[in-house]
Amino acid sequence: MASSFTKTATFASFGGKLLKLTHASTATGTPMAVNVYLPPAALQPTPSKVPVLFYLSGLTCTPDNATEKGFFQHAASKLGLALVFPDTSPRGLNLPGEKDSWDFGEAASFYIDATAAPFDKNYRMETYITSELPAALFADAELGSLLDASRVAITGHSMGGHGALTLYLKNPGKYASVSAFAPISNPTRCPWGQKAFAGYLGSEDEGEWRKHDATELVKGWTGRDLKALVDVGTGDKFYQNGQLLPENFEAAVKEAGVEGLELRYQDGYDHSYFFMASFADDHVHHAAKHLGLLDKAASASL
Amino acid sequence: MASSFTKTATFASFGGKLLKLTHASTATGTPMAVNVYLPPAALQPTPSKVPVLFYLSGLTCTPDNATEKGFFQHAASKLGLALVFPDTSPRGLNLPGEKDSWDFGEAASFYIDATAAPFDKNYRMETYITSELPAALFADAELGSLLDASRVAITGHSMGGHGALTLYLKNPGKYASVSAFAPISNPTRCPWGQKAFAGYLGSEDEGEWRKHDATELVKGWTGRDLKALVDVGTGDKFYQNGQLLPENFEAAVKEAGVEGLELRYQDGYDHSYFFMASFADDHVHHAAKHLGLLDKAASASL
Repeated sequence: MASSFTKTATFASFGGKLLKLTHASTATGTPMAVNVYLPPAALQPTPSKVPVLFYLSGLTCTPDNATEKGFFQHAASKLGLALVFPDTSPRGLNLPGEKDSWDFGEAASFYIDATAAPFDKNYRMETYITSELPAALFADAELGSLLDASRVAITGHSMGGHGALTLYLKNPGKYASVSAFAPISNPTRCPWGQKAFAGYLGSEDEGEWRKHDATELVKGWTGRDLKALVDVGTGDKFYQNGQLLPENFEAAVKEAGVEGLELRYQDGYDHSYFFMASFADDHVHHAAKHLGLLDKAASASL
Repeated sequence: MASSFTKTATFASFGGKLLKLTHASTATGTPMAVNVYLPPAALQPTPSKVPVLFYLSGLTCTPDNATEKGFFQHAASKLGLALVFPDTSPRGLNLPGEKDSWDFGEAASFYIDATAAPFDKNYRMETYITSELPAALFADAELGSLLDASRVAITGHSMGGHGALTLYLKNPGKYASVSAFAPISNPTRCPWGQKAFAGYLGSEDEGEWRKHDATELVKGWTGRDLKALVDVGTGDKFYQNGQLLPENFEAAVKEAGVEGLELRYQDGYDHSYFFMASFADDHVHHAAKHLGLLDKAASASL
């Protein structure tokens, strides 16, 4: 088992290690950057496999933004989770229209597999996030012995919140829990989502679009309770302007008779990393609970 | 009591509020940016005055870097301290030589009052940090009723660690405690400090330079124990290259028979915000202890 990853930097962080990695992706046909945080529990003299929380970033972000500003390492260190911060799209392709706007194309993949040209060959982020990246991590010579492939959860912010919710709903049993900060919860009904889906999936085909919309997907959910935590700031301009629509998601969850969504409106918080950092502990704790980590004494000290 | 500050932004953060402010400084003759974090304890329905921890940033930084990446808000929120993040120099002056290098001039004031032209009229950051800024904050119509002028501590990073240590040592009794991350501890003996002091104070006048060097200042310390916490990463290239020299500071403290310095070498940590974020809780806790906050139940939950 060789490593398919190249390590570009290593940082000590909260008693663990933050690795900046790149690897060649078959799904996207490009090099992909990914940051991995290994908590102290993975680095003991006798290392043991730790569960993994995938964090999907929002529009415009690289893996570094949340790594530097999200504060997820704080609780991950104490509770013993690894964190994986993938990139938000392929980069460096120079496809037509790919860089014309900040909310479409580069750094704006919406974590789906595009079916419309010219994006269909490279914008295959659903395959990358759910299959290729975890497979590469779990098969890696170094990381594979530290990361527990059987215990994985997912979270994300904004476009990444949409990613987390939809990938969770599309793959029952794959992730132990899901959480999201200010997720784009009903993309077929908001400008960001409509623009992205038109570009990546072709002009409006309601059936096709709905397959990538959390509010639509939850109507067909056949799993047990959702194990979902969602935070939205009441001062978030994108929430106020109807880009997020968590109320539609909540209504669909209720209408479907599904249990297990905790949706919290956080008074005065905006869409920024200040919002996420404030509740990062809660989201890591939520994942840890469903990954079976909370019997450990560590949780008491959060 | 009017406000001399203009609020440019407000963010909800860890249950409190982060204010981005600017005000006109007489000391520097320029507008100065400053960020202030108010913990929940300052914002209760019946607000009570909270103690204040000043954080001095390092070379190249604005008030925003530590605000976004330092995570001092986490413990400050729980323990009930306000945080003040001043800027690292005047800006926008366009003095000769001010922008020629990243380690001198703009964003590199070294928190001293310059005596050499052309910097002597505006680079008066010692006066600004120790007198003008706190006076303006404590006299402010809004902030003055929330911040306790009688309970103030100081911390900082790198150049700001030098600032924290020297301003603490120059002003016995002014600050309840001091701490520093990777401080430039003996600037008269390192390239960064020698360049700065030559530019701001004139070419080498050993007597004058020594007045702004923590390792020299501690030799004349007449206060009681230092109440000082210093963290240095063993993987810090600036430490390895002799820019920080905490060992000289420690030796001078010992030689002077002074107690109360806790110097910790943190294995593998570098000079970055990943290092600071990892130990921010400890430094806020250190200040809180000396500001009389640790009897409160809040400390238990850190």
